[in-house]
Amino acid sequence: MKTGEDKLVRRIASALAFKGRGGLVLGVGDDAALLIPASGHQTILTCDWFLEGSHFLRDKHPPDSIGWKCLARAVSDVAAMGGEPKHFLLSLALPGTHTGKWLDVFLRGLARAGRRFRCQLAGGDTTRSDEILINVTVVGEVRGDRAVRRSGAKLGDLIFVSGRLGEAAFGLRSLRDSRGAGHRNNLSVKKHLYPEPRLALGRWLAEKLIATAMMDLSDGLSTDLSRLCAASRAGARISSDRIPKVKLARGKKQQQLDATELALNGGDDYELLFTVSPRQARRVPPTFQGVRLTCIGEITRRQRIVLIRPGGREENLAARGWDPWMS
Amino acid sequence: MKTGEDKLVRRIASALAFKGRGGLVLGVGDDAALLIPASGHQTILTCDWFLEGSHFLRDKHPPDSIGWKCLARAVSDVAAMGGEPKHFLLSLALPGTHTGKWLDVFLRGLARAGRRFRCQLAGGDTTRSDEILINVTVVGEVRGDRAVRRSGAKLGDLIFVSGRLGEAAFGLRSLRDSRGAGHRNNLSVKKHLYPEPRLALGRWLAEKLIATAMMDLSDGLSTDLSRLCAASRAGARISSDRIPKVKLARGKKQQQLDATELALNGGDDYELLFTVSPRQARRVPPTFQGVRLTCIGEITRRQRIVLIRPGGREENLAARGWDPWMS
Repeated sequence: MKTGEDKLVRRIASALAFKGRGGLVLGVGDDAALLIPASGHQTILTCDWFLEGSHFLRDKHPPDSIGWKCLARAVSDVAAMGGEPKHFLLSLALPGTHTGKWLDVFLRGLARAGRRFRCQLAGGDTTRSDEILINVTVVGEVRGDRAVRRSGAKLGDLIFVSGRLGEAAFGLRSLRDSRGAGHRNNLSVKKHLYPEPRLALGRWLAEKLIATAMMDLSDGLSTDLSRLCAASRAGARISSDRIPKVKLARGKKQQQLDATELALNGGDDYELLFTVSPRQARRVPPTFQGVRLTCIGEITRRQRIVLIRPGGREENLAARGWDPWMS
Repeated sequence: MKTGEDKLVRRIASALAFKGRGGLVLGVGDDAALLIPASGHQTILTCDWFLEGSHFLRDKHPPDSIGWKCLARAVSDVAAMGGEPKHFLLSLALPGTHTGKWLDVFLRGLARAGRRFRCQLAGGDTTRSDEILINVTVVGEVRGDRAVRRSGAKLGDLIFVSGRLGEAAFGLRSLRDSRGAGHRNNLSVKKHLYPEPRLALGRWLAEKLIATAMMDLSDGLSTDLSRLCAASRAGARISSDRIPKVKLARGKKQQQLDATELALNGGDDYELLFTVSPRQARRVPPTFQGVRLTCIGEITRRQRIVLIRPGGREENLAARGWDPWMS
């Protein structure tokens, strides 16, 4: 009595069967999932495309990285609100050639990410298509009204970023330039393939009421900071020298790759960008669970982003991060 | 400071700005949406692909129908649990050629569906692609533990369907056979293009504790009934004569279209399939808000579906509804 689709769904459900944080009353296999929301919490809801050609390359990206990253991207949005991920829906459209080994390895990467983020499969939809199409919805929660929005930055707030920017974009270049799927142990390539959403940091900044505004860096600092500023009806002044940047080997520098350019306009970092009032700034430690936290500038009144170049020259920073409609 | 993607998102949000049922704290424009779940309710969560080529044809399906139907399909899953839709996420990937007029008309159909189902946009994701790719997530809710699952059917329960089956599949054929996008006023074509999820019926059956099991008919009765039976670890006996079928004009009959075949294996009806214990069966009216409710058979012990043909011949009914992996 089982059809092809039902068999596929059972394979997916069985590969992703691990214990979550609770709250799941009914998972895969009915018309919809049923969840019990935790009392005193708000529900966080987000979804993300992950499409062959746009977000990954079929012949360059290992399937377990595609599985890991499609969930990590959406979970990063929950981190950026200061919440905890709880459940996800997987929408997967695959060519007939990809339902064997490829799917198994993809699901292994996805299961590993689900266990790491304690985010459990609740349902989804599968169908056949010529290209690999993925969409992931994540449901999370945040206590009371602790969620941190993009819109809360105030004049004089200090601007922080976590980690080192531009690493993932540099990793993507290394991956593209490599033959086959090599270089996976390179730190930048790893960061591109298996990003770690800053869940603990986001939750801490929200719970302790430290961040006034927050978002994740997915499209590049120049674009994402302009979004945070637009939401907060403010501007920013940041210093090029202070941005923690990807470290390029000398050889790569000669290839005219610019670490600042990668840090400003490279996407996929999934670090957190957040603002803190000057009075609270001393509560921000130099590192949080091994991840560096760096003040790169401050919020200004005038709605533009000013970049201070080394030597002191100031320029208006244009949003030149990833935008599918601009490329 | 706005990029192309941000402008597109604002256009979508503005086209879909209408008042919902409440509970939306933060909608489009941040990393994620924030919802306040209603106390004493469970959250219903579902998503559906709606892809060019598989689910609709770019040159046959009017864009406002694509907008309507991508939401109606997912809302129908909420109806099948006996719940109320509240919010949705729209994931939309479009070719550069489709961000003008096509998008406007698509959004008009989607907005009409959103207002009709009182289901409000909470967020989503947009990107560019060669084909039109849509994924919709719907969040709904249901009071207490009133949700109706597929798995509750018991031996002897009567099997009901709403509406008339096979109409949408017949409508699709008419649409395919037509030149251009004509025949939109034909009843079957309308049902294919603008399905009406049975929200009020589903809610009534759940609230009044009438249905023991329920699901929506999206892939065809033969496939969906076998799913309900598998979930309930039971079988079914249904009578071909009793299935409410699409009415075919004489001319179409001569084209060897079989109404029973369409009713059994045609998908896209978005009617409800539900089971009722014999003691509760008298509470099921012949029509509910103008929609016919018909008993087509009963739940049996042995895990197979038996179809009684006109004249009394019995046969095992195979699941031959829509399955992307079988075509």
